[in-house]
Amino acid sequence: MREEGYVEGRNPVMEAIKGGREIDKILIAKGSEQGSIQKIIGMAKDKKIVTQYVEKAKLDAMSETKAHQGVIALVTPYSYKSVDDIIKVAEDRDEDPFIIILDEIEDPHNLGAIIRTAECVGAHGVIIPKRRAVGLTPVVIKASAGAVEHINIAKVSNIASTIEELKEKGIWIYGADMGGEQDYFKRDLTGPIAIVVGSEGKGIGRLIKEKCDFLVKIPMAGKVASLNASVAASVIMYEVLRQRGLK
Amino acid sequence: MREEGYVEGRNPVMEAIKGGREIDKILIAKGSEQGSIQKIIGMAKDKKIVTQYVEKAKLDAMSETKAHQGVIALVTPYSYKSVDDIIKVAEDRDEDPFIIILDEIEDPHNLGAIIRTAECVGAHGVIIPKRRAVGLTPVVIKASAGAVEHINIAKVSNIASTIEELKEKGIWIYGADMGGEQDYFKRDLTGPIAIVVGSEGKGIGRLIKEKCDFLVKIPMAGKVASLNASVAASVIMYEVLRQRGLK
Repeated sequence: MREEGYVEGRNPVMEAIKGGREIDKILIAKGSEQGSIQKIIGMAKDKKIVTQYVEKAKLDAMSETKAHQGVIALVTPYSYKSVDDIIKVAEDRDEDPFIIILDEIEDPHNLGAIIRTAECVGAHGVIIPKRRAVGLTPVVIKASAGAVEHINIAKVSNIASTIEELKEKGIWIYGADMGGEQDYFKRDLTGPIAIVVGSEGKGIGRLIKEKCDFLVKIPMAGKVASLNASVAASVIMYEVLRQRGLK
Repeated sequence: MREEGYVEGRNPVMEAIKGGREIDKILIAKGSEQGSIQKIIGMAKDKKIVTQYVEKAKLDAMSETKAHQGVIALVTPYSYKSVDDIIKVAEDRDEDPFIIILDEIEDPHNLGAIIRTAECVGAHGVIIPKRRAVGLTPVVIKASAGAVEHINIAKVSNIASTIEELKEKGIWIYGADMGGEQDYFKRDLTGPIAIVVGSEGKGIGRLIKEKCDFLVKIPMAGKVASLNASVAASVIMYEVLRQRGLK
């Protein structure tokens, strides 16, 4: 699977331009040069990015999201950041680190939605594993509404050792787990923290779970015992923002 | 578009059986009678529901979700509840009403995820409009993880007049809106409330917005200015649960 190279859809392409992503060329479907596409053409001109008109059928054939909305940007592959880059963002902003660690999220819509919320709450970065998880595919980029352009994403080969590194830097590791001992909103989340979110079906892996300083749970008042993974991650992230805002 | 009639996938079918949904027949793909399908066969037997083995190709052709996992239940169409049914649930549980109103949610995954979270937070019901919005399709049911079986869903022809009705019953109407005057977590959400959530692109319609008692916003700390609709709804719903739990 080609992991990067395209950004598809109107908002994602606009965010890629705004975010300063290196863009080789923007392909636009003939006959769709109105509305926000017009705006994209203008933005591209300002930044001296080449635009090219092609048959809609060509975009249809290229598209992985099947929702290109008449525009696909050809971009240089996403250049992942390091964990240190993420921590530096926190330092530069003079904030306690707030990092999201994703343990094997498999659904691209969920990955995109989590990155989107992480950016919206002002988190400093998202850490994903190199193996056995979805990467930054066009579907993820689209689901993120372009947020991938505005937040640092690090890809690490070993989540467990990354967690150790973060701990050494004084960051507390919170795992979101159904078997957690405390409700997430009963903990103080205002200090330096990283939140670990597991895959939809299986949650956080055992090894990673043991590395967490605390396991927090999201209370369930109904009969369906689990939330969508991106909803679960987002609910906790917004509690962090709420608590930090009240400080 | 056929709106109801099938429930697809292992968890949704299990939830349909548990929820007491009227099931005509359960179709099972030949060769997939292990694991959780075995469990479904057992549950069906207990409830005297007919199971029938068919070629996988038949399920593929019927499937709307394209992820039937070897099982499709043929069910009597979902029987929508009334707004009064929803209020009665709150009375029966001796709780202040907590209702979700969806104004034109178009994406079936979002609708499903919102219903799922609503059930998880113990809300008393979800109100959706009859027109210009997605109904309870198999994709919605699957995205809800079967939650549609455990929460009351009412379909009304006029959201604005339903809001008036709710107000007369002493329920406060909170609209989730980017232009809201206050952060959602700064309001007391422990009383009788209904939360209105708008469509992904356009938010709540003007007319409906004017009917709201309060507009609350979800603060955005990043550059991407909006959340996925199901995430936005879920973040507010969990704040209601948090506040009510602390009472």
